[in-house]
Formats: sequence, structure tokens, C-alpha cells
Amino acid sequence: MVHQGDNPELIIVGSVGIDTIETPAEKRENVLGGSATYACAASSFFAPTGMVGVVGTDFPEKHREQWRGMGIDLDGLQTAEGETFRWSGVYAENMDDRETLETHLNVFADFAPDLPERYRRAPYVFLGNISPQLQKSVLDQVDQPKFVLLDTMDLWINIARDELEEVVGGVHMLTLNESEARLWTDEHSLLRAARRLLQMGPQYVLIKRGESGSLLVYGDEVFLLHAYPLEQFRDPTGAGDSFAGGLIGSLAESGEIGPLSIRRAMAYGSVTASFGVEEFSLERLSALGRTEIDERFARFERMCRF
Amino acid sequence: MVHQGDNPELIIVGSVGIDTIETPAEKRENVLGGSATYACAASSFFAPTGMVGVVGTDFPEKHREQWRGMGIDLDGLQTAEGETFRWSGVYAENMDDRETLETHLNVFADFAPDLPERYRRAPYVFLGNISPQLQKSVLDQVDQPKFVLLDTMDLWINIARDELEEVVGGVHMLTLNESEARLWTDEHSLLRAARRLLQMGPQYVLIKRGESGSLLVYGDEVFLLHAYPLEQFRDPTGAGDSFAGGLIGSLAESGEIGPLSIRRAMAYGSVTASFGVEEFSLERLSALGRTEIDERFARFERMCRF
Repeated sequence: MVHQGDNPELIIVGSVGIDTIETPAEKRENVLGGSATYACAASSFFAPTGMVGVVGTDFPEKHREQWRGMGIDLDGLQTAEGETFRWSGVYAENMDDRETLETHLNVFADFAPDLPERYRRAPYVFLGNISPQLQKSVLDQVDQPKFVLLDTMDLWINIARDELEEVVGGVHMLTLNESEARLWTDEHSLLRAARRLLQMGPQYVLIKRGESGSLLVYGDEVFLLHAYPLEQFRDPTGAGDSFAGGLIGSLAESGEIGPLSIRRAMAYGSVTASFGVEEFSLERLSALGRTEIDERFARFERMCRF
Repeated sequence: MVHQGDNPELIIVGSVGIDTIETPAEKRENVLGGSATYACAASSFFAPTGMVGVVGTDFPEKHREQWRGMGIDLDGLQTAEGETFRWSGVYAENMDDRETLETHLNVFADFAPDLPERYRRAPYVFLGNISPQLQKSVLDQVDQPKFVLLDTMDLWINIARDELEEVVGGVHMLTLNESEARLWTDEHSLLRAARRLLQMGPQYVLIKRGESGSLLVYGDEVFLLHAYPLEQFRDPTGAGDSFAGGLIGSLAESGEIGPLSIRRAMAYGSVTASFGVEEFSLERLSALGRTEIDERFARFERMCRF
């Protein structure tokens, strides 16, 4: 947790929503979710983070309090007349495949990001998984950021590929799932897919593989990272967002941008995400301390060394 | 490759067969296969290796020449009246799932391992994937081995679990696939499954996860290893055997048995297996040099470091 009031080192744009989630073991209704929610929660352990998003007038004040309790700057969170974005989904027995039951964009349908002046010089920017048009709009409002990370998904690859490729051309790192990388490039090999994506402009391509970890490709180099192994977890929702949020938060904290600091930041992202999935929504992350993260990070390092 | 004539440091028992393999891209008939074939080929780069197995009188001499060319000691390979073991299988589009089309045990049905005197003091033993009764028979003939690795499969877990648990109780390391670990223990979590398997006696449990790498559990510790990433490969048959063979070969070469040498040996196993799958049968391994292995190992280390 970091002090409030300073200008954010890192701004994160994404969805903020109310989720209903069903796993094989249990069902939770109306919990706080969205890509910006998970990413900001994860990054808040490492760097002063400003949230960019929109909620409706129905949005419960308790969620804002939870974010503030984690030191998240909410100046960039708009409140619009209407209902907050809602999503519901159900996980398969393997806790990996999931089916979306309902999506109600609500106030998100007319979201037009307008960054507070305090946010416009943030050196680190995470463009979470929203439409490439909105991602571009946020990027255009930031003054010469040092490092921009962009996440996307199959929907935008399918319906807005040109716009996506345009905005990807202006970011430092692109992240996406392995199935999305294959969809986008028509390459089954993740190494080849990553090389194709590098040609679009970013210096780093980070492919997420769920429980199998992740793969970073840059120049001629490859970095392989495991997912932190858990004996059990309750809700994988937001794991990719927490991973990315922890990554860019840790990178901002390090103050250095290069392969070594990015590798370490990815490991911090993996560890932070591993806490997040232990409970639903922000239940685990909001009760987490930095010491626990550092201890698990040290254990993770030992697990991967040879 | 190592010198022939010395007593083997490592003996490997397993199947030796003639395979017919179909992948989405191509089909190869009557190629050299079997768990002992792949494991001995992989270990031969690291330590003097003796093969224990059986072939029929139809077995082509050219395969023996190929093995001898790799420095593999064949004193423990019996020739029995009849036909050699045959297997055929077809891989799914993902090159991971496969279906067995035919299995003809032939001379393997009456295999009774009888170790040459020279083999009985081998300090390292790999009990490849054959029936637990045969594994036990081999183990009983070896005089106080320093390190015994046992591989198994779903078939033996299903039809000979008691015998399997008995022999597993007397080995140092057990290896198996993730689906087999779950089948055996009824635990979905691989960490929990590994802990259950440790209670059967071995100090180390190594769970193979295909392209997702592998997981070593010992005491309260966990080691996570990636699979070496390839842009393309032609035939995954024998990858698990090459991995295990490279592992125990490298361990024998190191002369040390402990977590650090085992971690490194696993990485050597992964690298050796990655060459093996680049071509069918032993086509790539038999043309491979140790320098290539060491170079890829160094690259692999860089890929995993953070």
C-alpha cells in the first residue's frame, strides 16, 4: 500500500463491474470485479496507482472504500447516470474453461475516458482489456509515458483488428492469452505467434498460459515463467488482470525498464495473482500485506532455480 | 557418447519395440521405439548406459548398430524366439492427445529380465514403464543401487496397483504424468497428489506435464521446470522417456544425489527430450552431439532466470 495524494506513478484503465460467479463448488452474486479492479488492486502493493474507469450511480460506496483502503487513487473513476457494468459466468469442472452467461455494458457503453490533469504525466500506463478505441483515447491523453502495457482479448481481435493493431503499434508491451495469440496470428507455435506480434511494434510480447505460466518474447530472447502453484484456489476470475497489474506495478516500483526488471516484475505479478485467486473478488488481495507477497516471491524464486 | 566396455554406471529397463506413428502431418511405419530405446539414447550422452530388454529374432541389426554407435551397452538386451514388441498410435491435431491403435506384446509377453553380472553393481537404475512385477525383478537383481528412478503409467495403476505400490516403496524417485498422478491419488491438485505419492516411500516425486513442463516435490520443497520451448516438432513419442533418461544420465554424470543436482539433471533431461521430438524415433538423438545439448542447456538457463 502506498500513500494517497501524490500523483500516480501508474494509471490503469479497464472495466469496473459487478460480477456473479459460479464455480463447481460455490456461487457468489454481485461481487466487485472488472479488469481495472483486479489490476489496480494488484499494482497498489508496488506503486501509487490511479484508476481510470466508469461506474453507475448504483455503485456501492463500500467498494470505493475498499479501494481507498488499498491506497488506490480514484480521481480517474467517473460516475455516470445509470447502472454499473455487470458480468456473470460459470466455470467448468477444471476451473479453467468458463462460459459467460450475461454481459450488461450499462454505463460502460458510453464510456469516454477523460483523464484528470494529475494522471497525464504518469510514466507507467496499463491499458486493460477494453476496446482498442478506448485504449487509444487514454494513450492519447498521456504525455510521453515511459512504459505502456496493453492487454486485449479475442473479441477485439475478431471485431476491431485494425484499430487494435494501430494502438498496439504504439505500446511497449502487449499481453494476451495463448488462444488469443493463436487466433490473431494463425500460428500454433507460441514462439512464432509472439514473433509475429512483435512485428506490429511492441518490444515485448507476453503470452499468458493460465496454470502453465507465461512466456515473454523480446528480440531474440525468451523468458519462461511458471504460474505460482497453489494447492487450491476458489475463483480464477481476474487472475490475468492481477498478473498484469502486479507486473506493471512492480516495474514502476523498480524504476528500471529492461529485460531483468521485467522478468522480476512478471514473477511479482504471478505471485500477486496467486493470492488473488485464493478467494473471490478482492477478498484476499484487500487483506494482503506486502510482506506476504515478498515471502511468497522468495519461495517462488527457490522453486524455479536450477 | 561414452566409452564401451566399462561396466555401466546406469542400467535402464523398459520396452524395445517397432512403432508405427501417425501425426497430423505424416505417418512413419516400423520405426525403432520403446521406453528403453528413448531413455538409453538420452542417457548415453551423460553416462555409460546398459540396456535391459528383449527383442525378437526379427529385430533388424541396423538398430543395434545405431545403439552401439551411441555407446549404449547391449549386454542386457535379450533376443527371444518370436517377434519384437509392436505399437502403433495416432496423434490428435494438438500433437498431445494420442490414441493407441494396436499393441502386440509378442516376445515381451514372456520377458524375464536376467541381468548380466556386469550390470548388477550399477549405482543408477531407471525402471522404465513396464509392469511392476518386471520392475521389481530387475531391482532385486541390483546390488544396493545409489539411486533408482521408476516410471509408470495408467495401465499399471489400474490393474496392478498393489504390486506397483510395493515396488515404489523401494525407489528414490517416482515419475508419472499429471493425469496418472490424479488417477492414482484422486487429488486434482498436483501438489497434493505428489504429497500423497511421497507417503508411499520415494524421496522425490516428479510429475510430467508435457508442454507445460514438470514439477518435482520432495520434503516441503517444490521445483518447477519448464519444457524447453520449440517452434515445431515432428513426433512427441518417447519424450517422457528421453526426459527421464537424460535426467538420470545427467545425475549419474554429476556423481551427486541431492536437490541441486537433481534440478540440474531435470533441466538436462528436458533439453535432451526437446531434441528427440524434433524428428521421429532416434533420428535426431542419434545425430546429436553433447555440445549442442550444452549450448541449448545454457540457453534454457537464460530463459528461466529472473
